[in-house]
Amino acid sequence: MQKKLKDIAKFINGELVGNGEALINGINGINEAGKGELAFILSSKYEDLIGSTKASGVVVPRDIKKSFNKPLIMVDNPSIAFSKIINIILPDRIPHPKGIHPSVIVAKNADLGNNIALGPYVIIEKGASIGDNTILYPFCYVGKNTKIGKNCVIYPNVTIREEVLIGDRVIIHSGTVVGSDGFGYDTQNSTHVKIPQLGVVVIEDDVELGACVTIDRARFSKTVIGKGTKIDNLVQIAHNVTLGPNCLIAAQSGISGSTKVGRNVVLGGQVGIADHLKIGDFVVAGAKTGISKSFPAKTVLFWYPAKPVDKARDIIASIGLLPKLFERVRALEDKIKELDK
Amino acid sequence: MQKKLKDIAKFINGELVGNGEALINGINGINEAGKGELAFILSSKYEDLIGSTKASGVVVPRDIKKSFNKPLIMVDNPSIAFSKIINIILPDRIPHPKGIHPSVIVAKNADLGNNIALGPYVIIEKGASIGDNTILYPFCYVGKNTKIGKNCVIYPNVTIREEVLIGDRVIIHSGTVVGSDGFGYDTQNSTHVKIPQLGVVVIEDDVELGACVTIDRARFSKTVIGKGTKIDNLVQIAHNVTLGPNCLIAAQSGISGSTKVGRNVVLGGQVGIADHLKIGDFVVAGAKTGISKSFPAKTVLFWYPAKPVDKARDIIASIGLLPKLFERVRALEDKIKELDK
Amino acid sequence: MQKKLKDIAKFINGELVGNGEALINGINGINEAGKGELAFILSSKYEDLIGSTKASGVVVPRDIKKSFNKPLIMVDNPSIAFSKIINIILPDRIPHPKGIHPSVIVAKNADLGNNIALGPYVIIEKGASIGDNTILYPFCYVGKNTKIGKNCVIYPNVTIREEVLIGDRVIIHSGTVVGSDGFGYDTQNSTHVKIPQLGVVVIEDDVELGACVTIDRARFSKTVIGKGTKIDNLVQIAHNVTLGPNCLIAAQSGISGSTKVGRNVVLGGQVGIADHLKIGDFVVAGAKTGISKSFPAKTVLFWYPAKPVDKARDIIASIGLLPKLFERVRALEDKIKELDK
Repeated sequence: MQKKLKDIAKFINGELVGNGEALINGINGINEAGKGELAFILSSKYEDLIGSTKASGVVVPRDIKKSFNKPLIMVDNPSIAFSKIINIILPDRIPHPKGIHPSVIVAKNADLGNNIALGPYVIIEKGASIGDNTILYPFCYVGKNTKIGKNCVIYPNVTIREEVLIGDRVIIHSGTVVGSDGFGYDTQNSTHVKIPQLGVVVIEDDVELGACVTIDRARFSKTVIGKGTKIDNLVQIAHNVTLGPNCLIAAQSGISGSTKVGRNVVLGGQVGIADHLKIGDFVVAGAKTGISKSFPAKTVLFWYPAKPVDKARDIIASIGLLPKLFERVRALEDKIKELDK
Repeated sequence: MQKKLKDIAKFINGELVGNGEALINGINGINEAGKGELAFILSSKYEDLIGSTKASGVVVPRDIKKSFNKPLIMVDNPSIAFSKIINIILPDRIPHPKGIHPSVIVAKNADLGNNIALGPYVIIEKGASIGDNTILYPFCYVGKNTKIGKNCVIYPNVTIREEVLIGDRVIIHSGTVVGSDGFGYDTQNSTHVKIPQLGVVVIEDDVELGACVTIDRARFSKTVIGKGTKIDNLVQIAHNVTLGPNCLIAAQSGISGSTKVGRNVVLGGQVGIADHLKIGDFVVAGAKTGISKSFPAKTVLFWYPAKPVDKARDIIASIGLLPKLFERVRALEDKIKELDK
Repeated sequence: MQKKLKDIAKFINGELVGNGEALINGINGINEAGKGELAFILSSKYEDLIGSTKASGVVVPRDIKKSFNKPLIMVDNPSIAFSKIINIILPDRIPHPKGIHPSVIVAKNADLGNNIALGPYVIIEKGASIGDNTILYPFCYVGKNTKIGKNCVIYPNVTIREEVLIGDRVIIHSGTVVGSDGFGYDTQNSTHVKIPQLGVVVIEDDVELGACVTIDRARFSKTVIGKGTKIDNLVQIAHNVTLGPNCLIAAQSGISGSTKVGRNVVLGGQVGIADHLKIGDFVVAGAKTGISKSFPAKTVLFWYPAKPVDKARDIIASIGLLPKLFERVRALEDKIKELDK
């Protein structure tokens, strides 16, 4: 929907600097934007990009230092402004399903909130409940007694097994599986007897799960994804794991059974954490780190097996010099032989 | 369903020690259980947990050493007892589909066994067969001529392509794909020409496949998952791989094309095995191990590139001391210079 | 369909050597083939296998050096001949859906090409288009305004979100997700605010995507998979990545946000590439390589953190000798002490 720059500024309680008559009909990256498009910078450290953008206006934080020959809207928080503006400029950007499609199969005693949307071929099993304004795309499966909160968006082809608890404002991307059985066997004479997995999964408010994520149900008790934690694509969360609030788990990482991860932990891509460990609050692990023991809060980790990053860097630097070290030791040995004579 | 402890003891041929009148209506972990719940320990090495549990009874192995002020049921095999008790205390725990839903699409010449369950929107292509008592959840696809044995459970959103052979008592979790094309191309002048993948996949009896597992069909001949092998979530099995019986493959591991893996091999999480290798029986590889050559039976492997674990441990310990080694060599060099003078 | 060897030779413009009367009714690997089956060797370096095969005939390149007591068909390019012969000998090998199943849900203004096939329960949202001869298997979801080209095959349970552009002759295997949101948040006071992902995904002609692959949409602008690039199972492509043409990306590899990968790049399995890097044309990275900085064209990489392969090999060899190096340094220290006295 087309809006004048000055009207957008008013809508987001921003301060317009420059001419507000430009018509805005799109949003784009500051490097990619053209005429009629609005761009954003999230921090004044990117302010030099304002000079070269072809956008018709830029939303900026209030601490911009220089002045530019470009209409700006100054706001307290450009990322919040960004989300608000998308909703008025591009209201139909994401074509969420609307209403309840006649092909859905909903158990009689399922509890459906107000204003929900169920796309074609959605299945809701008995005892399940869906909170107000929640949207389920086609081919989603919601198992028996599973509760999904309000204002959630579940994309196509998501499987949520029985007895799972999902909070409000949770986003789950396609292909993801919540509540599959934990990987547990009792080995008897070299054969593996399945240990029933009787627990549940709890996904707290404001969690986002990427595509093709797998979160196993607990053996007993629960697997927990803490409030506000964001999980990228193809991540594995094993049974009985607890992830604290506000973690960021990058793609293809995996956390093994019963490990407790604190709050605001950040894992790079392809990180692995072994089972039954405690990872403290605010721990950060670089990509591909392999964590095989517990670490206290605020440790920054890298490498395999994981070490505090300063130690890891020393070791990696040393390793790079190893071939030369061998030469130096050989030279010492020769010298010693000579001296010995 | 509620049962008295003494009736449960009788049902599983266990020996009741203590008062058998307590009513049991649930099952839980020994640390989590409360009044009315039954707990289990699988080995006497956990017997100290009996002292602190709030469970109304505990199922234990017969070699318990101490006595406890808590009703116990002694059995030969607590894990088998556990599975049996679940079926009487929590008979509807897993709400498997029942019967054949009217929305399923089954080819006329498909062969459906007795007492099978096909959830909504299941598709069975022509020439396929489903064995007695097998359950398919919604959105499962069974390709042309694929045979699925008896007593299998296939969870929602599983794709089983054409010409796949699946044994009895196989469990497949959601999002898994069996029989996708192997990754094979013939490169001609820097472009890649697809090599048709004409083979099949054979999944033997008692296999369990986790969520979002991918098992590619062979180029010719077959990809094989041996009897009783258990595969965790997000594992990749490439074309023409053979996995022997009773392997355990943890999450996010991958096995490259044409590699032959023996029986009872155990791979930790995120292990990779290169193509065309032979991995002997009872090999164990720690998490994140990268295996680039063949290893004989019973080797325990770790690290990248994989080494026998004793060697890997020596190397990893040495690496940790590398920065100090550089100092020691520098000190030696200084000393030699001095002596040389 | 059964054909005489001599008729197959004529069909593919090959030169028959030996008796052409054998009836061929199948195709198999040279080691597995039996009577009535045709086998192939793609290069004369495998010609010794011709001596031992039980196939009724072998398709070979023209530069075969020895003569064999076996009917051969000599061709310029056995892999192209292979694909052609499959189409006549095994015309119904892959049982693609045919026609438009009555259960599909197609938006009124969607644009369907000629001779397309939509299997049961396919969903095509408004503004989407499907090119001539393209086949969609059951449970595929095609989002709003997404364009799919001609002669594509999309296997079951694939999710293609809104505004995605897919070229001609693209193959997408089951469980794959194209156009999920990029993993982008703005962290404010330790909580993560979602940054809307407004961009698209472009999949160029002749791309093949394996099973359970995830390709995220760009934040702005586009994520691009270049013409002829082939991606194996369980691979992650993050937002704003550009992959050049004719790359080969093996299973479980991941490429982080905004990284630009050149043409004909080859990644082994479980490779990771960090964000915002440039990887030159024809770069090759061995399995499990962790790439944390940019590398120029034609570099061959290995290890974690990635190094040029010659350097990596030197280092890995040195590491293997480290425990002995410690002994050598200790011996030197002892010797020096002795000399010092």
